[in-house]
This record gives sequence, C-alpha cells and structure tokens, in this order.
Amino acid sequence: MEPHRKELLILRLLKEARDGYLSGESISHRLGISRTAVWKHIQAIRKAGYHIESSPKKGYRLNPDFQPFNAYEIKGLLETELVGRTLHFHDSVDSTNTVATALAKDGAQEGTAVVADSQKGGRGRLGRRWYSPEGVNLYTSIILRPDLPPQEAHKLTFLAGVAVAEAVEEWCPVRVELKWPNDILVEGRKLGGILTELSSEADRINFIVVGIGLNVNMDTRGLPEDVESIATSLKEVCGKELSRVHVVAGLYSSLEKWYKRFLEEGFEGVLKRWKDYFGFEGRRIVVKGREIVEGVCMGVDGDGALVVALPSGVSRKVMAGDLEIAG
Amino acid sequence: MEPHRKELLILRLLKEARDGYLSGESISHRLGISRTAVWKHIQAIRKAGYHIESSPKKGYRLNPDFQPFNAYEIKGLLETELVGRTLHFHDSVDSTNTVATALAKDGAQEGTAVVADSQKGGRGRLGRRWYSPEGVNLYTSIILRPDLPPQEAHKLTFLAGVAVAEAVEEWCPVRVELKWPNDILVEGRKLGGILTELSSEADRINFIVVGIGLNVNMDTRGLPEDVESIATSLKEVCGKELSRVHVVAGLYSSLEKWYKRFLEEGFEGVLKRWKDYFGFEGRRIVVKGREIVEGVCMGVDGDGALVVALPSGVSRKVMAGDLEIAG
Repeated sequence: MEPHRKELLILRLLKEARDGYLSGESISHRLGISRTAVWKHIQAIRKAGYHIESSPKKGYRLNPDFQPFNAYEIKGLLETELVGRTLHFHDSVDSTNTVATALAKDGAQEGTAVVADSQKGGRGRLGRRWYSPEGVNLYTSIILRPDLPPQEAHKLTFLAGVAVAEAVEEWCPVRVELKWPNDILVEGRKLGGILTELSSEADRINFIVVGIGLNVNMDTRGLPEDVESIATSLKEVCGKELSRVHVVAGLYSSLEKWYKRFLEEGFEGVLKRWKDYFGFEGRRIVVKGREIVEGVCMGVDGDGALVVALPSGVSRKVMAGDLEIAG
Repeated sequence: MEPHRKELLILRLLKEARDGYLSGESISHRLGISRTAVWKHIQAIRKAGYHIESSPKKGYRLNPDFQPFNAYEIKGLLETELVGRTLHFHDSVDSTNTVATALAKDGAQEGTAVVADSQKGGRGRLGRRWYSPEGVNLYTSIILRPDLPPQEAHKLTFLAGVAVAEAVEEWCPVRVELKWPNDILVEGRKLGGILTELSSEADRINFIVVGIGLNVNMDTRGLPEDVESIATSLKEVCGKELSRVHVVAGLYSSLEKWYKRFLEEGFEGVLKRWKDYFGFEGRRIVVKGREIVEGVCMGVDGDGALVVALPSGVSRKVMAGDLEIAG
C-alpha cells in the first residue's frame, strides 16, 4: 500500500530528466539495483497512474502533462513529520474511516493516513451518506492517539475544522464558515465535513480517527438534487481547479500544526480560532438532537458545547445535534 | 458458534431420559430428522464436552455426572430476553472484549455475548493483564447499543458492577465491595473486574462492549505472586465450588434487569445502588491518574466522577485513575 522508496527515487529521477529519456542502465546504476528490478519498479509506477513511454534504445520517459492523484505524488509534496508519513492510498474504499479504524486496531501508528479517490459507503455524522464520487474530491482519514478521556474526543472535530478552514484560505480568498459541530461551509453551502470516530475504554481513548471529506473539483450542477442544493466545491468557490495532491499535502501540514499546538497548549487556542470561523453567534437557531432546542445562539463553551439562550432567559448547553437558523 | 437448536433439543431429551438409553430411532422420530442427522448432532454434542455412551442396540446415554461449561448448558439455563440470547462460546480467545468488538463491528445485535473458558490476552483497564486461566473462571463480554453520548459510557461500568455484586450475593452470603471505577472486591481482594470499551462518533456511541472477568473456582494459592497477593475467588469466599453455568446465567439475568432499569429510569437508581457497595466514603485516599490527587473521599457525583476533598478544603472531581487507601 505504501509507495516503495526506490520507486519514489525513480520517479524523481524521471521528473528531473523531464525533457529527455533516462536509460534503464542509468537508473540501475544510480540505485544499485538490477535492470530487471528497474523494469519491475517502472511497471509498478505505471500501475499507479503515470504515463511512462519506453524505447529500447533511449530508455524511459515520463509524460509530464499528467499528474495522477496517488501516494507517490502526495509523498513527494508532504512537509509533515507525523500526519501522512505513513500513507495508505486506495482508488476506491467503502469509507476511509472504516479502513483507518481497521489499521488502528492492528496497531497503526499515530499520524497514519488513508486517502481514497472514491468512497462507496462514504459516511457523515449519524451514519448519514457522504456523497463521494471518484476523480474529483478528497476523502482522507487520519489516525491520532492523544492521551485523552473519550468525552474530549469532539475537540479533534473542532481542531480539524480549524485546520481545514485555514488551509482553504491559503488556496483561495474565500470566507470559510464552520458550522457546529462538524460542517465546513462557504456561503452557506457544504464544502466539506468532519467525521471523528473513536475506540475507547470508559475513561481513556485507544485511538481517534479523524475523517475529512472535502469537495475539491466537483461540479455540483447536475448532481442528485439533495446534493446539488446544499453542496459546493473549492473549484466553484475559487473559480479554478486545484491539484488534489497540493490540497492533501497542505491540509496535512495545517492539521499537524494545530494538533501539535493542541497537545502542547491545550484546547483553548483551538477553540479561540474556531470561534473566528463560527458565524452563528447572536442568531436565532434551532438545534435538533435528542430533543429540539430553540433560542438565540450564545456561542460555544470551553468544552465545545453549544450554548443556547432559551426564550425564558435560561441558558441551555447542547452536546450534540443539528444546528439550523430558525426561520 | 451458536449451539444448534436441534442439538439443544437432543440434549434435553437425553437429560430427561437420564437413567436409561434413548434410541437413535426415537430421536429421529421425535425431531423429524434422519438417523444420519441424529448421529451427526450427537458427534457435535460430544465435541462440545459431553460424555455420551452409545450402544448399537439401546441407543445413546448421557453421563449425568459431568456438566461441561459450554453454550448448550448456558443456553439451557438462560432466563433473559436480551443478554446472551445470541451466545458465542470459545474454549480459548485472545480476549472476549476483542472478539465482541469484532462481532459488534460486523453488526451483531444488542445483547450478543461472548464467553470463553480461557483468555490468552485477557485485559484490564489501561491495557493491564487480566489473569485468565482455563477451566475455572468466567470471562464474558456483552455488546450493548444504548443511545448515549460517549461521555456517558462509564455509566455501564457502574451498572455492570451493581449487576455482578447483586448476583454474587445471591450465590453466597458475602459482603461485596465495588471499588471506583471498575473493581469488584471481597475483603479487599479482587474477585472480578469490568472493562468497558466503546466505539463511537464524537457525540454518539456506536456500541459498547462490557467485559466482565469473575474469579469463580480458581485457587489463588500457588498462583504468580502478583496475582496471589491481591486476588480471591467465589470458591474461596463462599467455601464451595460453584457451577460456572449457573454463574453466567445468573449474571446475565442481573445485568439485563439493571440495563432495562437504566434505559427506562436513568442512571440515578444505578448509582444509588452502586453507592451501597462503595466503601471508600470518608476515608483518606490517593487517586493516581493523569495526576496524583490525595484527600478525603467524598463519594461519587451524579456523573460517576470521584469527589475528593483536598487538604485545602477545596473539592476536586476525578474522572479516571487508580484509587487507593492513603497510608
């Protein structure tokens, strides 16, 4: 699943020799491997989506016009120490959270990431469907192992929200809005979402899987009506296509920055930044969860609970539910 | 894994014909199955640990002096509607919690239980070892699917503690003590423990696995020193051996009673009963968790947090840690 180190090296050599050919002999010589081994690696690289021409006399040549979305490309751009250093890339999965959970159960280390080009059973909160077509968006899940009690797991949802929002604002000048508890919006439409899942003892987390779905180059026009009416994508809000390789690498950097800050300095800084992106304060809202709570949104408290001022004047904390503007 | 319904019936017929033989023909007739099918079921029943004599002329006879510990016997005694109605029995597993977690991920219904005769990797809280020899004790895990946020999962640890304590007191007249958060003690020695684990979204539990380890007929003398010095068993505190079949059936009834009460009436009644078994109130204690807290134990609050009065007079709530008498 992990890209082979030698294949990453061969790819780099091919990219550096962009205009010309690189002979099998030269690769064999530089990497200290046999010509047969070179050939096998080239086959593996082709399988990962690269267009490599080969000529018996001149050797191999990489077609530079085509950048695939795969683990080689992501690895080549990663600047993180933790998030994504171990990377599992799949063309299609049931859901990246499901794959990451299985890896974590088998002992995968903190920071291990799963990326998929498409999801057949992409999920949102409460088992809801997450529309996950191939070839256009980002679906990724990251395994974290913070020493926390389970009641603090939702802090990672806030943290991931901030990480996504800051990364998006680096790519294009839009105003990102974070909707409690886990949606990423632009102009009221869903750009992405976060699904935090955990395995835990009663008082200690074994591992957390932070799943992030981000609509990158998807055209929402013509999609199923329930998606078209509420979704948007980076392409639509930025007015241009973005490279998913850059998107995932930038996202992992942002996530790692905020995760380290959280471990070192606690939740306060995360929450402060999150509030910059939260646009519901002072508005009349309805929260639909185990019960329906209606009132004025007073923001979120230090634990991330939503605070609602009821018509009676009493304040009410809500831990979970769907937030809507009252209308 | 589940015992075959026809085999349960054959066993009952054999038990009812205890003193005499039951012919293959008679079984075949009563169950409406072929003689070959009868023979296959008898083989399966033997494999589950029963001693069945067979005579070409007289038929089959069950040796009544030998009660094995298996799913047939447990099923035969169960009086529950939910807990253990689906039962997976294993001679040996890594840990029953691990097996139950895998079953739950695959969609096993609420109440599904795993019982093992021994555990190779029996676990306690914080990944500590749970000594799990074969042939003497009870190791069981039950899958529950309450509609709760993850921060309330520890309530199931309290609930299971009460269920175990009440069941034990039905079997022998001892005073059971529950030690926060998850130990079951008699005269200060460990009779059993509870390991509650969960899979969850940030704000909703997918499933809880309640693991219960109970020392039934184990002799603690001669055990590894770290076990001998702190453990006891029902046999030692009751002064007689107990049938593990009766123990598990009684335990499931108790657990089901308390689980239903919890779903219908909430946590208050569980906690009230739990406090009857909690003997640390008013004593000087040390709690070792993320930090060390020393003071006088003021009991537990409505959420199950331990309340400690510090020397300064300030009260402190502790969510997780190891409780010891200060000294």
